[in-house]
Amino acid sequence: MQNGVVGFVGLGRMGTVMAANLAAAGRRVVAYVRHPERLAELKTLGVTSTGSIADLFDCEFLVSMLPNDDAVREVFFGANPGAADGLAAGMSPGAIHVSMSTISTSAALQFAAAHARRGQGYVAAPVFGNPHAARNRELYIIAAGAAADIERCRPLFDALGQQTFLVGEEPSAANLIKLAGNVMTATALEVLGEVIALVRKCGLNPETFINILTSTMFGGRVHRIYGGTIASQAFAASGFVLPLALKDVTLALAEAQRAVVPMPSVSVAHDRLLTGIARGYAELDWTALGLIAAEDAGLQSNIGAVGDAAALSKASS
Amino acid sequence: MQNGVVGFVGLGRMGTVMAANLAAAGRRVVAYVRHPERLAELKTLGVTSTGSIADLFDCEFLVSMLPNDDAVREVFFGANPGAADGLAAGMSPGAIHVSMSTISTSAALQFAAAHARRGQGYVAAPVFGNPHAARNRELYIIAAGAAADIERCRPLFDALGQQTFLVGEEPSAANLIKLAGNVMTATALEVLGEVIALVRKCGLNPETFINILTSTMFGGRVHRIYGGTIASQAFAASGFVLPLALKDVTLALAEAQRAVVPMPSVSVAHDRLLTGIARGYAELDWTALGLIAAEDAGLQSNIGAVGDAAALSKASS
Amino acid sequence: MQNGVVGFVGLGRMGTVMAANLAAAGRRVVAYVRHPERLAELKTLGVTSTGSIADLFDCEFLVSMLPNDDAVREVFFGANPGAADGLAAGMSPGAIHVSMSTISTSAALQFAAAHARRGQGYVAAPVFGNPHAARNRELYIIAAGAAADIERCRPLFDALGQQTFLVGEEPSAANLIKLAGNVMTATALEVLGEVIALVRKCGLNPETFINILTSTMFGGRVHRIYGGTIASQAFAASGFVLPLALKDVTLALAEAQRAVVPMPSVSVAHDRLLTGIARGYAELDWTALGLIAAEDAGLQSNIGAVGDAAALSKASS
Amino acid sequence: MQNGVVGFVGLGRMGTVMAANLAAAGRRVVAYVRHPERLAELKTLGVTSTGSIADLFDCEFLVSMLPNDDAVREVFFGANPGAADGLAAGMSPGAIHVSMSTISTSAALQFAAAHARRGQGYVAAPVFGNPHAARNRELYIIAAGAAADIERCRPLFDALGQQTFLVGEEPSAANLIKLAGNVMTATALEVLGEVIALVRKCGLNPETFINILTSTMFGGRVHRIYGGTIASQAFAASGFVLPLALKDVTLALAEAQRAVVPMPSVSVAHDRLLTGIARGYAELDWTALGLIAAEDAGLQSNIGAVGDAAALSKASS
Repeated sequence: MQNGVVGFVGLGRMGTVMAANLAAAGRRVVAYVRHPERLAELKTLGVTSTGSIADLFDCEFLVSMLPNDDAVREVFFGANPGAADGLAAGMSPGAIHVSMSTISTSAALQFAAAHARRGQGYVAAPVFGNPHAARNRELYIIAAGAAADIERCRPLFDALGQQTFLVGEEPSAANLIKLAGNVMTATALEVLGEVIALVRKCGLNPETFINILTSTMFGGRVHRIYGGTIASQAFAASGFVLPLALKDVTLALAEAQRAVVPMPSVSVAHDRLLTGIARGYAELDWTALGLIAAEDAGLQSNIGAVGDAAALSKASS
Repeated sequence: MQNGVVGFVGLGRMGTVMAANLAAAGRRVVAYVRHPERLAELKTLGVTSTGSIADLFDCEFLVSMLPNDDAVREVFFGANPGAADGLAAGMSPGAIHVSMSTISTSAALQFAAAHARRGQGYVAAPVFGNPHAARNRELYIIAAGAAADIERCRPLFDALGQQTFLVGEEPSAANLIKLAGNVMTATALEVLGEVIALVRKCGLNPETFINILTSTMFGGRVHRIYGGTIASQAFAASGFVLPLALKDVTLALAEAQRAVVPMPSVSVAHDRLLTGIARGYAELDWTALGLIAAEDAGLQSNIGAVGDAAALSKASS
Repeated sequence: MQNGVVGFVGLGRMGTVMAANLAAAGRRVVAYVRHPERLAELKTLGVTSTGSIADLFDCEFLVSMLPNDDAVREVFFGANPGAADGLAAGMSPGAIHVSMSTISTSAALQFAAAHARRGQGYVAAPVFGNPHAARNRELYIIAAGAAADIERCRPLFDALGQQTFLVGEEPSAANLIKLAGNVMTATALEVLGEVIALVRKCGLNPETFINILTSTMFGGRVHRIYGGTIASQAFAASGFVLPLALKDVTLALAEAQRAVVPMPSVSVAHDRLLTGIARGYAELDWTALGLIAAEDAGLQSNIGAVGDAAALSKASS
Repeated sequence: MQNGVVGFVGLGRMGTVMAANLAAAGRRVVAYVRHPERLAELKTLGVTSTGSIADLFDCEFLVSMLPNDDAVREVFFGANPGAADGLAAGMSPGAIHVSMSTISTSAALQFAAAHARRGQGYVAAPVFGNPHAARNRELYIIAAGAAADIERCRPLFDALGQQTFLVGEEPSAANLIKLAGNVMTATALEVLGEVIALVRKCGLNPETFINILTSTMFGGRVHRIYGGTIASQAFAASGFVLPLALKDVTLALAEAQRAVVPMPSVSVAHDRLLTGIARGYAELDWTALGLIAAEDAGLQSNIGAVGDAAALSKASS
C-alpha cells in the first residue's frame, strides 16, 4: 500500500475539482476514468488518471464521488452481489474507502460491513456545497466512521472543505444528515416558491421581501441566495437539477419510511419536483420549484425566458 | 391636537412593553385600558392610562396593537359599520393611526380609506419579534403608508425597534409582508419538526444536526433558536401559542385565496396547527409543531413533560 | 298569509327549474327577479314573477336558492345588520323560510334565530344534484328544522326531488351535511384525476380502468359519471364550475377550522381548485380537477381542446 | 407436463381458500408449503401439499399468491439473480405462471421476459377482494397476458372469482390497475376518515351521513362497508392491515415516480398510513385511517377500545 496516495473514482463536476484540490494540496492522486479523452484535462489539474481500475489497488485512500448507491456498489463490489469482482477486492487491507457520495444509509451499512470483512476502513463523508464551493475549498464535510480512520482522512478533508463535522462512528449517520440537509433545502425552496408567488401576485416587490426576510429571521445561504434567485425568477439551466433533487428527496422519504416517520411537507416538495420534471423543466436547477409555484399561481410571465433557457440547454447538450 | 403625544390601544404583552419604550424615549403616552387594575402597573412603566377612550382624542399618534381585524375595527370605527362611533370619529384631522397589529390586507385597505375620508393618516407598521425582543427594542418594523406620515412616525419606530423597512405607500403591503413572514416561520417550524423527528428516530443527536444546519446553510434566528427548541423538545407553555399562529396562517391563506395562489406547504402547516390544537396543545408555543411531528412518528417520550407544562399553564391561567 | 303560496328568491339555473316544478305541481309561485326581461320566460314556466319584494310578503313559504351567505342575508335581513330592512321584516309570522342554498352553518344558525324572533319558521333544505337533475325532480334534499315545519314543507320537497333525508331539528345540520357531501365529491374528483393521470401515462385505457372500478368497489354516480368525464378528458365549460366548487370547499374548511378538524386531503383538493382557477380554467366544470392532474403529469394533449372550450365559453358569455 | 394440474405457491390466508376453490372445482392442486404442519389442514380442503418444490415441476399452471416482488422472484427465479435455481428452471416449456400477487409492474416485466425465454407463459391476474370474498368465489380478477394463455387460464379464473376483466396482452397492465385500485380505496378511506371526523365533531350522526352519501352519489362497496366501519369506529385488528396497505400505496407511488406523475392526495394517504403504524396501530385494518383522522381532530373516545383490540391481537398472535 502506497501511503498517502489517493485513488479517486467519480470524476464528475464535483469530483474533478475535488481531485484537483487534493493534488494542489500535495497529494498524489490517481483517478479512474472511463473516457480516455479526459486524461489530458486531468493532467493539467495535476491529477494522474487511468482507464484501469487496477492502478488504484495500491492507494491508501479510495475516494468515491458517485451519483448513487448502485454506482458505488458496482465500482467497489462488482455488478453481481457476492461476485467480489469490484475495487474492494483489489484494495489493500488497511486502506480506507472515503465515500463522499450522497447515498442511502442502508447502502452505507452494507458497504461498511463489506470493507470491514476485508480489513479495510470505510468513512462516510458526504458534502454540502456546489462545484463552485468545491473549487474554493468551501465545502462542508459531514464525516462519520471509526475515529482512527477519520483521523487519517482529516488532511484530505482539510484540503477539500472549510469545515468538517464529525457525527459519530457509524458511517451511515453522515449519510442521513446529508439527506436531511437536502430535504431542508428542498422544502425551503418549495416554501419560498409559494410565498414569493403570493408576494408577486399581490403586486409587491419580491426582492424587498427577501431582503426583509434575510435581514431579520432567515439569514443563511439558502434564503439569501436561493430566495434571490426565486425572487428574480432567474432559473439556471444547470446546477443541482430537478432529477438530482428528486433522487435525494426520494432517498430521504425512503429513510423516513424505514424509520416510520411521516413527512407531509417533504411529500409536497417531492410532488412538486415530479411536477417540474413532468412539465419539462428537468434541466433547471432546483430553485425551479419557485417556477412551479409561480405557474400554479397563474404567474406565467417568466415561462418564455425559462423555456428559452431550457431550449438553449437542450440544444447545447 | 397635542403634537407628539401617543395614544395607545392594545396593552397586551407586546403592547405594554412597546408603550413603556415609547415613554422611556420621552414620549407622553396615554393608554386606553378596560381594566382599572392595570393603571398602577402602567404608571410604573411611565405610561398614563385611562378607561375613557375620549382621553385619546387629542393625540397626534394613535398606536394600535390589537389581536385581529375585528378588534381594530371595533375600537376605531365602532362595532356597527357605518355607525361612526369609534375612536376615529374623535381623532383630529391630521392625526395618524399607526396600526401595528397583524391584520388582513382587506381590513387595512378599509381602515386606510376610512381615515382618509376624515383627513387622518393611516400607517401600517406590523412587527417581527416577541415580547422579549420588544422589551429590548429589537423589533423589526415593516412600515407602509404615505411618505410624509411615515416620516412623522419614524421617531416612534426608532424607539420601538432595531430596524424599520419601508415597503411602499400602500399600507396593506406591510400587512401582507408580515403575514408572508409568519408563514415562512410556520412552515419552517413544520419542516424542522418533520426532519428532527427523522433524525431522532434514526438515533442521531438532533442538536448536532441543528448545529450543522445553522453553521452551513440555514443561519438566522428561526433555525437557530426554534431549531434548538425542537431538537431539545423543550416546548414552552407560553409565547406565540398555536391559536395565534393558526390565526396568522389562516389570514395568509385567505390572502392567497384572494390572490388565487395555491400554497400546499402552507396548507400542511395549517393542518398541523389545527391538529396540535385538537390534541390539547393550544397553550404551547408554535414550536410545538415539532411535537406533533414527533408524536406522528411515534416518538412519545416527551409527551409527559409537555402535558405537565400544559397542565401547569392551565392551572395558573 | 296566503296558505300554500310559495315565494321564490334566487332564480338562477337551479332556482328557475325548481320554481317551475313547484308551479307544475299546482303551486302558486311568486318569484322575485331583478331583471324585468325574465318575466316572460318565467311566465311560460307557470311562474308569476315580480320586481317588488313586497309582493312576496304574504306567501306561506319563502324558498331561497341563492349563491352564498351574504346573498341570503341581504335579501332576508337587509344589507345592514340590525337594520331589519329585508324580506324577513315583511314576512308573516307563521311563514317558513325554506333555505335551499349551500351556506355556512354559522349563517344558518343566525338566520334560524332571526326568524324565530319574528315567529317565523326556518327550514334548511340544501340539495344534491345539478340543473338537469333538478328539472327531472331527481334532486336529493337534505332537510333539517322543526318537525312541524318540515311536515308543512314536505309537499314542496316531493315536487322538487326524488328523496328527502331528515337530519335533525337543528337547521345547520343540513348545511354541514351538504358541505361534507360536496367535499367528498371534490376529493373524489381530485383522486380520480391523479389516478387516471397515472393510468394514462402508463399507456393503459382509462375507460377500462373506470369500468373496472365502478363494476367492483366504486359504484355510484360520482365515480361512474365523473370518472368517465375525466377518463375521456371531455371537460365541459359549464356546470358546477371551479369557483363554485372552491366556494363550497372553502366553506367546509372553515367549518372544519371552527370544529378543529384537520382535513389534509381536502386541503389538497382546495389547492388544486385554486390552481385550476389561476391557470385560467374558471369556466370549466369541477371535473377539471382531472385536467390539473393531467397537466401536472405532463399529459398536455388535451389542453388545446379545453382551451378552445374555455375560449368558446368566454366568447359567448 | 400434466395437463390441467395446478401448482400453487403462497398458501396464506388468500391463497389457501383460493387453492381450496380450485380443488373444489375438480382441479388437482399441488401446493408447496414450508411448514409440514399445514399438510393435514390442506388435505381436508382437497389440496395435495408438498414440502418439495420439485413436486410442482410437472404442473401445467403455477399459481403464485405471494406477498411481494422479492417473494415471487425468490421462488421462481432463485435468490441469486442469474443463478436460475428457482421454480422456473424446473417448469415445463408451455406451462403458465399465473401470477396473482400484488407486485410492481417492473417485476412483472422481468418475470414475463424470464418465462418467455424458457418458452413458458406468464399471466398476471391480481385480484380485488378479501379472504371472505375469496372463499365465496366473489373475487374480481384483473387479467393480462397473451390471449391464448389467458384462454387456458379462464377455467381457473371462473373457479376463483365472480368476474374477470381482461386488460391487455402486457401482463404488467393488470398489476398497475390493481395498484391504482388500491390507491383509490386508500384515499377514499382517508377522505372518509376526515369527513366523518368533521361530521362527528359537529355533533351529527355519522351513520346518517354515510347513509345519505351511499344513497345518493357514493354507492359501491368502499363507501358503504368501509364508511360504516369508520362511522361506527369499529376498527378490526385483522384484515388488510396498515403495513399491507402501506406496501401497496408505496408501490403505486413508485410507479407514479417512474411515470412522472405527482399524486398529492395519495401522498397524504401514504403519510397517514405511516402515522398509523408509528402510533402503534399496525395490526388494525386499513379503515383505521379513520382512527388517525379522528385522533387528529381530538376525537379520542374510541382510542381505548381500539387499544384493547390491538392489545388483544398482540396477546393472541
